[in-house]
Amino acid sequence: MTPDATLIEVGPRDGFQPIGPLIDTAIKIDYIRRLHDAGIRRVEATAFVSDRAVPQLSDAIKVLAAAKALPGLDVQVLVPSQRYCQKAIEAGAENIAFVLSASEKHNMNNVRRTPQDSVEEYRRLVADLPNETSLRLNLATAFDCPFDGSVAASEVVALLDQLVAIRPDAEIALCDTTGRATPGEVSALFAQVMARFTSGPSWVFHGHDTYGLGVANILAAFSVGVRNFDASFAGLGGCPFAPGATGNVATEDVVWTFDRMGVSTGIDLNRLLDVAEDGVCIPGASSGGRVRAALRGEACVPALSA
Amino acid sequence: MTPDATLIEVGPRDGFQPIGPLIDTAIKIDYIRRLHDAGIRRVEATAFVSDRAVPQLSDAIKVLAAAKALPGLDVQVLVPSQRYCQKAIEAGAENIAFVLSASEKHNMNNVRRTPQDSVEEYRRLVADLPNETSLRLNLATAFDCPFDGSVAASEVVALLDQLVAIRPDAEIALCDTTGRATPGEVSALFAQVMARFTSGPSWVFHGHDTYGLGVANILAAFSVGVRNFDASFAGLGGCPFAPGATGNVATEDVVWTFDRMGVSTGIDLNRLLDVAEDGVCIPGASSGGRVRAALRGEACVPALSA
Repeated sequence: MTPDATLIEVGPRDGFQPIGPLIDTAIKIDYIRRLHDAGIRRVEATAFVSDRAVPQLSDAIKVLAAAKALPGLDVQVLVPSQRYCQKAIEAGAENIAFVLSASEKHNMNNVRRTPQDSVEEYRRLVADLPNETSLRLNLATAFDCPFDGSVAASEVVALLDQLVAIRPDAEIALCDTTGRATPGEVSALFAQVMARFTSGPSWVFHGHDTYGLGVANILAAFSVGVRNFDASFAGLGGCPFAPGATGNVATEDVVWTFDRMGVSTGIDLNRLLDVAEDGVCIPGASSGGRVRAALRGEACVPALSA
Repeated sequence: MTPDATLIEVGPRDGFQPIGPLIDTAIKIDYIRRLHDAGIRRVEATAFVSDRAVPQLSDAIKVLAAAKALPGLDVQVLVPSQRYCQKAIEAGAENIAFVLSASEKHNMNNVRRTPQDSVEEYRRLVADLPNETSLRLNLATAFDCPFDGSVAASEVVALLDQLVAIRPDAEIALCDTTGRATPGEVSALFAQVMARFTSGPSWVFHGHDTYGLGVANILAAFSVGVRNFDASFAGLGGCPFAPGATGNVATEDVVWTFDRMGVSTGIDLNRLLDVAEDGVCIPGASSGGRVRAALRGEACVPALSA
């Protein structure tokens, strides 16, 4: 049965990436397996990026291969460039997520290019992409930039005019990178772009819970017809621009809320909570979310040590 | 200037009440003074209840007197019965909040009466109330009960039919005691009762952030015209039905969100954050909210001890 809303679990990439101590590859793979057991059918499993810049994801080839082996799991990997896209495809990636930022300063900071240079990079990436490869665009800072503040909808639309023309059927995620978008801004921007680009793209909202609006913004996107949402189990991820704050919206908070609303996600909350409870205890992890504490208590019980 | 939305700070009552170690009366009064300095103009300062049941609030007479001395501060106190209402009035209370629950089990648990017995108690309370005393009704479990689950809107409306007839101009707070109401439920119930009772009551939403929907539910109530919202600085309060979980929605999260939306509250976020940072450190306190960590970091720096 097709769920009413699809959650794309980004914990293994967005959640693990900022964790300092390296997580064993086998442990990462086990988390993905358990998330799949809980009903997750889309995952951002890893990223193909510079090992030096992101040592935590230097095992991308192994993680991707293991994730692909799970039945019915749609596995996407993040890439910042055409070069890393090729590496991902050589490693067997069938679903590529390319990231660029709407705001110039964030894009420079994130991938050391202007947004316009990223558009040209995207053009090259698409030109070389095998026909059977699925493509998704992650448009970061689509609402607000940590350096420049609010991003005008007109800038986002102007960028999308170019990007959609390059590959009309790519999925597009509008990302609230800072967590400072309000529900009204989220629903307004989605309503605008969904009315403008009717010829192909499906839409995703990627929100952060940094200021407590993670689920509120997902519901705002849902209210105008968005049906795909990124989320991270245990709210793993943190926020590089607000140390100590929480990051991605917690998958379990979204599942709980949709369950209450009668919106099916295909995900078993109890199984997901089991995974989230362990995720909180990953050494170095920054976690978030509310539902876990409400239903299971706050305790982080570390594994027994001899 | 009248603010676009009024926040009623309930931390000194709802937030302090479950804290075990007694907070010095002078410290409580200083918190109320600092909240007033930050722009708070309505506060639930304390409750008149059994000292044995709630020792933390046994200094109600002193706290009320000090709060009333602050210029322009509307001070309400909570009472569970006509008898405690009289005590509050003798102590100088000018704004009484009477609490009853829509669900039978919660009302029995909270005030040891059936909801219908509480309606009769309310009738007696109103009959004895001085003309100049303001009155507010806190209708707990208006959406969901910790013991019985979802509460039907029809039950709430039937109860309100009786309560509004007793005192048509009393302010009415619909309380999401468990935090399990969804935004759709909140906006639907308020829309229904605001259309039904047009002759007097002003409306308040009292929400909890236990499952992460605290601010989302406030925005849902705001969207249908509610303009008064309870909140607790630092998210103080916890949840008796979910140990380890957070309680009342944090005042600073609500102020931050309304600021982003251009909705004025008259409250200075930075001053409020100063108070909230200290509130987190009250020994025994259970805190919540997101904005404090996002803007100030998570650190709780305890007072120096000798």
